Amino acid sequence: LVGCGTVGGAVARILLQNGGRVSERSGVGIELAAIVSRRKEPALATGIDAGRVYSELQPVLDNPSIDLVVELTGGLDYADEVITRALEADKHVVTANKALLAHRGRELFALARKRGLSIGFEASCGGGIPIIRAITDGLVANHVDALYGIVNGTSNFILSEMIHRGESYPQALAAAQAQGLAEADPTLDVDGTDSAHKLAIMASLAFGGDVRFDAIPVEGIDNLSERDVAFGRDLGYVVKLLAVAHRIEGGITAWVRPAFISSEHPLAWVGGPFNAISVYGHTTGHTLYYGRGAGGDPTAGAVIADIIGMANGVIPAIFAHTGFWPDRNHNGALIPMTESTSRFYVRIMALDKPGVLASISAILGEHAISIASLRQNEQAGGDVRVPVVITTHRCREASIRAAIEEIDRLAATADAAVCMPIVEEHPEYPSN
Amino acid sequence: LVGCGTVGGAVARILLQNGGRVSERSGVGIELAAIVSRRKEPALATGIDAGRVYSELQPVLDNPSIDLVVELTGGLDYADEVITRALEADKHVVTANKALLAHRGRELFALARKRGLSIGFEASCGGGIPIIRAITDGLVANHVDALYGIVNGTSNFILSEMIHRGESYPQALAAAQAQGLAEADPTLDVDGTDSAHKLAIMASLAFGGDVRFDAIPVEGIDNLSERDVAFGRDLGYVVKLLAVAHRIEGGITAWVRPAFISSEHPLAWVGGPFNAISVYGHTTGHTLYYGRGAGGDPTAGAVIADIIGMANGVIPAIFAHTGFWPDRNHNGALIPMTESTSRFYVRIMALDKPGVLASISAILGEHAISIASLRQNEQAGGDVRVPVVITTHRCREASIRAAIEEIDRLAATADAAVCMPIVEEHPEYPSN
Repeated sequence: LVGCGTVGGAVARILLQNGGRVSERSGVGIELAAIVSRRKEPALATGIDAGRVYSELQPVLDNPSIDLVVELTGGLDYADEVITRALEADKHVVTANKALLAHRGRELFALARKRGLSIGFEASCGGGIPIIRAITDGLVANHVDALYGIVNGTSNFILSEMIHRGESYPQALAAAQAQGLAEADPTLDVDGTDSAHKLAIMASLAFGGDVRFDAIPVEGIDNLSERDVAFGRDLGYVVKLLAVAHRIEGGITAWVRPAFISSEHPLAWVGGPFNAISVYGHTTGHTLYYGRGAGGDPTAGAVIADIIGMANGVIPAIFAHTGFWPDRNHNGALIPMTESTSRFYVRIMALDKPGVLASISAILGEHAISIASLRQNEQAGGDVRVPVVITTHRCREASIRAAIEEIDRLAATADAAVCMPIVEEHPEYPSN
Repeated sequence: LVGCGTVGGAVARILLQNGGRVSERSGVGIELAAIVSRRKEPALATGIDAGRVYSELQPVLDNPSIDLVVELTGGLDYADEVITRALEADKHVVTANKALLAHRGRELFALARKRGLSIGFEASCGGGIPIIRAITDGLVANHVDALYGIVNGTSNFILSEMIHRGESYPQALAAAQAQGLAEADPTLDVDGTDSAHKLAIMASLAFGGDVRFDAIPVEGIDNLSERDVAFGRDLGYVVKLLAVAHRIEGGITAWVRPAFISSEHPLAWVGGPFNAISVYGHTTGHTLYYGRGAGGDPTAGAVIADIIGMANGVIPAIFAHTGFWPDRNHNGALIPMTESTSRFYVRIMALDKPGVLASISAILGEHAISIASLRQNEQAGGDVRVPVVITTHRCREASIRAAIEEIDRLAATADAAVCMPIVEEHPEYPSN
């Protein structure tokens, strides 16, 4: 076990304290042979023998009785080194490192395969939710058509606070930090990066390609206004930070951004720090997987399931036989999301002057965008700007963007318009 | 493939028409060698070569190039014969037959194991939801503490109609039949039997025992009054036909019955014909699995995942190594649910006479049952009976039953009282 932070510590404690229970259920004997940690104290606090705590990786790699290295250090460079050296020393690998797999999954999977080894990474996406197994095993008979995920618990908690308490983003972030659900520097969680890491991994497997993290357009919740949360709610929508990948004509498109979803869709009900992923398969239809997306114990449960799966042969069987791995399929180029269609929510701050609505609707009409609803409330307080809230029928993303650029240039509008997709229930059997 | 009804036909069509796609994704070549069906027409309608359609099982068993028999005939006796003979002829087995596994899973698993074979049965529970894999593989590191399922789509559709349209049970049943979501004889779906079959299978695996179908107390939705649905809704609860198994002191208890659940619990949001199963594990906490619980295509997706899992080695690995199988653990005796505790909803039809509330509360008090809320509305129409709706704090099931027996004997009550459990959010880490 390399790395002994929150997840690593939980893995070690479960193996040391509940090892008997785990062995009885799994039918495989698992022995925690070593913890490699730069700091000795957290390792010793798990109750492991002091003689099994190492500050360097090499003695572990040199030990032929060790079959498996669990990488839980996080970060990129050292983790990459740990996994690469472990594979080169003929050890299987289990990791929770979504950032590394999103960036270098293809190369690491190829290296493992070349050496007849496997990599388990259930814990990299959705914490305790067995979503990797669902995609690679439970849904293996499916041609996956779409994948919609809420895969960052910090963001979902913040959005839940904004939705249910009407809080602003800074207030909700402070609440999350006070409850230990957001780090002091929450950037990677709230700016969508973490969700995009997970989406890159899940979409690669679901669609059988090599969806690279840096090809996914990402927008976070850090600029979201409580005003749009409230306007959306009035229209029957709930805002979620969605990680989406779906088939469109000619290929796959993918994105991470705040989006509105109907309050009737199961994903709208996912509250607080929970995660959920909806998968639409051509034969199974809509299935959804829900649970805790982070935290020591839930993530440790996924890591230990992978250790067991490596020992009993389940993971090697999937790794060796199935055909959807990024190192086996290089058709990962995404179609730009501007080519896809969606419904949209648009909020324009208009100066209360005659003709402004006419100009806005004319621009939308020129771009062949059909208005589904429009609401302009009376001016409030001393503000000379009034919010105009528009929902559109389905249109091309390129069209709405071009229209908004023009609207933003109007003399009668202030600030940049806010534009968010409205995600409708995905048709269940579109590719039949 | 033995049996060519809705599910069997869908399996055959997917293998014949999308076989290339399935092979590409799964990495295993699957050839549909034969359909055994008493009636030739449905088999031929799948597009299979006429020379591969048989009316008898024996030629299939005699064919050494056939590795796997898929039993989709339904029912008990013939299905049992098919599976037993297939195992004795050294073929692996995949089945969707929940009734058979609930009754004779232990014996069939033992026979398979004795002959070095495996049985796949993902399709037996939750249709397209990979819940068997979640319990036996994804959550394998967990000591499961509780399992709450909505596992009958027909009943859930009927209840959704009763909840959202205020319909009576007969009206909602007729709507389900009109939409093809209930059979002409819906007995096994609405009386809870089908849910109990699935619960017996899931609970055996989750708790590592041999939970027999006939040990599970079962009550259906066929006597549910729309009046109680509405009273419960006013109190913030949603009625669901729940299949529940959970640890209590000294063991496991299990039941199937209509129950109220808080409208905030994710299971309350499962509408129409969908199914969902909540599992509470000691390390992973709450996870939930949602999808279509029936239907040809979703169930076929699970059957084909099992065929692939048999070919790539995933199912044999789980079957051979893991320790929670009913044939390996005989500690399946359930603790009577009267020994467990719950909150309860009670509706009493009282004659509008002085002292009746005093008598009722006195009886509850004598049985150490504490009232959480009580509501008696004014008499309506010409009815001399008024409904008294009580919710209790947590108490022993034996106590509430004894109290209700006494209340029913009061001269001031009419009809038998209605009593339903109120299921609270399960504590996530009770067994840590």
